[in-house]
Amino acid sequence: MMPEKVTIADVARRASVSRQTVSNVLNSPDLVREETRERVRQAVEELGYRVNQAARRMRTGRSRLLAVRIEQTQDGMNVFDRFLHGLTDSAAKAGYRVILYTADDDRSEIATFDDLLGAYEPDAFVLTGTHYGDVRTSWLAERELAFVTFGRPWGMPEGGAHPWVDVDGAAGTAAATRHLLGAGHRRIGFIGWPEGSGVGDDRRSGWARALDDTGALERRTDGSAAEGEAAARELIAAGATALVCVSDSVALGALQAGPVPVIGFDDTPVAAAIGLTSLSQPLSDAAARCVGVLTRLLEDDSPDKPDHVLLEPSLVIRRTA
Amino acid sequence: MMPEKVTIADVARRASVSRQTVSNVLNSPDLVREETRERVRQAVEELGYRVNQAARRMRTGRSRLLAVRIEQTQDGMNVFDRFLHGLTDSAAKAGYRVILYTADDDRSEIATFDDLLGAYEPDAFVLTGTHYGDVRTSWLAERELAFVTFGRPWGMPEGGAHPWVDVDGAAGTAAATRHLLGAGHRRIGFIGWPEGSGVGDDRRSGWARALDDTGALERRTDGSAAEGEAAARELIAAGATALVCVSDSVALGALQAGPVPVIGFDDTPVAAAIGLTSLSQPLSDAAARCVGVLTRLLEDDSPDKPDHVLLEPSLVIRRTA
Repeated sequence: MMPEKVTIADVARRASVSRQTVSNVLNSPDLVREETRERVRQAVEELGYRVNQAARRMRTGRSRLLAVRIEQTQDGMNVFDRFLHGLTDSAAKAGYRVILYTADDDRSEIATFDDLLGAYEPDAFVLTGTHYGDVRTSWLAERELAFVTFGRPWGMPEGGAHPWVDVDGAAGTAAATRHLLGAGHRRIGFIGWPEGSGVGDDRRSGWARALDDTGALERRTDGSAAEGEAAARELIAAGATALVCVSDSVALGALQAGPVPVIGFDDTPVAAAIGLTSLSQPLSDAAARCVGVLTRLLEDDSPDKPDHVLLEPSLVIRRTA
Repeated sequence: MMPEKVTIADVARRASVSRQTVSNVLNSPDLVREETRERVRQAVEELGYRVNQAARRMRTGRSRLLAVRIEQTQDGMNVFDRFLHGLTDSAAKAGYRVILYTADDDRSEIATFDDLLGAYEPDAFVLTGTHYGDVRTSWLAERELAFVTFGRPWGMPEGGAHPWVDVDGAAGTAAATRHLLGAGHRRIGFIGWPEGSGVGDDRRSGWARALDDTGALERRTDGSAAEGEAAARELIAAGATALVCVSDSVALGALQAGPVPVIGFDDTPVAAAIGLTSLSQPLSDAAARCVGVLTRLLEDDSPDKPDHVLLEPSLVIRRTA
């Protein structure tokens, strides 16, 4: 089915020149007479000959590939697809392409690193979903492989030793809480994720920081809308008059609990569809910064210390608060 | 920053053997004594030496890459991320990886084909978003490049000359309409997309087919929720007692128009969040079939005729119908 690959020999035959002449036209055109050059170029065009990139890659030792895991969509209320679109765009502008893989957990992701390195030699990895005890980053760091995480290295002293880009969840929930304070609310509840989630604890901390007294108006959930609704009922019964939520999924449930203002996090398509006020991550910017960090790593002199980039989310005000 | 690449010479030095011996261990281990083999393997392990895949690629002429465009998310009410996840999974099982690109229109996509072929030599392309007058497929076909489209070649005689995988939208809206007929409705409206959309016309045709008489209860929209709501009001005023919609976005708007049963299309996360009955595309299956079509093209004998695979969507019944 596939056509035979066009070789330099085919081009030489068509142009009635030697293979060396074809090679000269491609690599050192100044050595070749204009007329011959034209004939070779025409043959290259007619035959659709392509410079052997595998050979070029052998010379440069660069694959120009960035590897990233495509995340499970779960309930679909996430924004990874926007990050991935931004990453693909920014990478292309910097001369890189994104190669995808899937993985169920850290162990299988590390096994996939190994596979990818063996078969495709990506120049760098972009890791998402950082968490406490993340063994992926140490695996890559030990092998001195280039990578950036979208997400902080939770639990590492001084922000960790590797480059990362993240969005300041605490700044986001603090802004949400101040928005509700500005509307006159004083008893503002928080619906979060289980303890031990770096992202969840970060988002919780902004809410707590913005209040003189949290009044213990907080509940942890598994992140589902069902538990969000139950938690909201409890908090409203305990006197909460407005709710800040760790995610749009939880907020979606909270909205069922009663007519109190609710703010979600992530500005998912669901938030836009139902009029949910929510915090929006600057995902295109985050993706561009990830690519920037990697190109600095791959192409510039060694940075003195790893890049750490923390971006601010913005509050998108809609119907619910 | 990046460590020096480990070469065969490094391995040879560490194992105190010749480069030829290292090469033999890697390529023809039977030629080498067990003890020497062990010593070389240990050096390979210690140094983290990797077989030069670029060299292997030069020999096989295969990149093991499938290129696919990552689509704009627009209002986020689409399901491309699920297709892409399935494609990445299925490709990995077949020994391929997915490489991403973005493009704004057919012309820029074709320019990107050219870039990708020059720099990465993908073995095949997976095209999405097929439409009338699609110039991408003829560009690839003329160059005898391997590709499959997820989406039919709208407007081509006899289903087109290239391989495709698609979901039977007409079967889906027919099932939705029969579901409403079964609930006793007789005046069932359809809210669609502008004329000239292959997908939109296909979805419309299933609704029309399931009814003896459509009663002209149809409106076309730009696909937004706002126009969906306006169209629904008109159809309800014209006597419609239930609505079949071309998309979840349109259905979301239609739900605002009044308390009539509404069915969407695509089973987006928004449908799940708001309890919208909708048609679900078998996206993992479609992605797996795309990979299957391509592996047949790339690895098997020439098929007599291109693979055409049409899959059935399923009706996910929720609150709204």
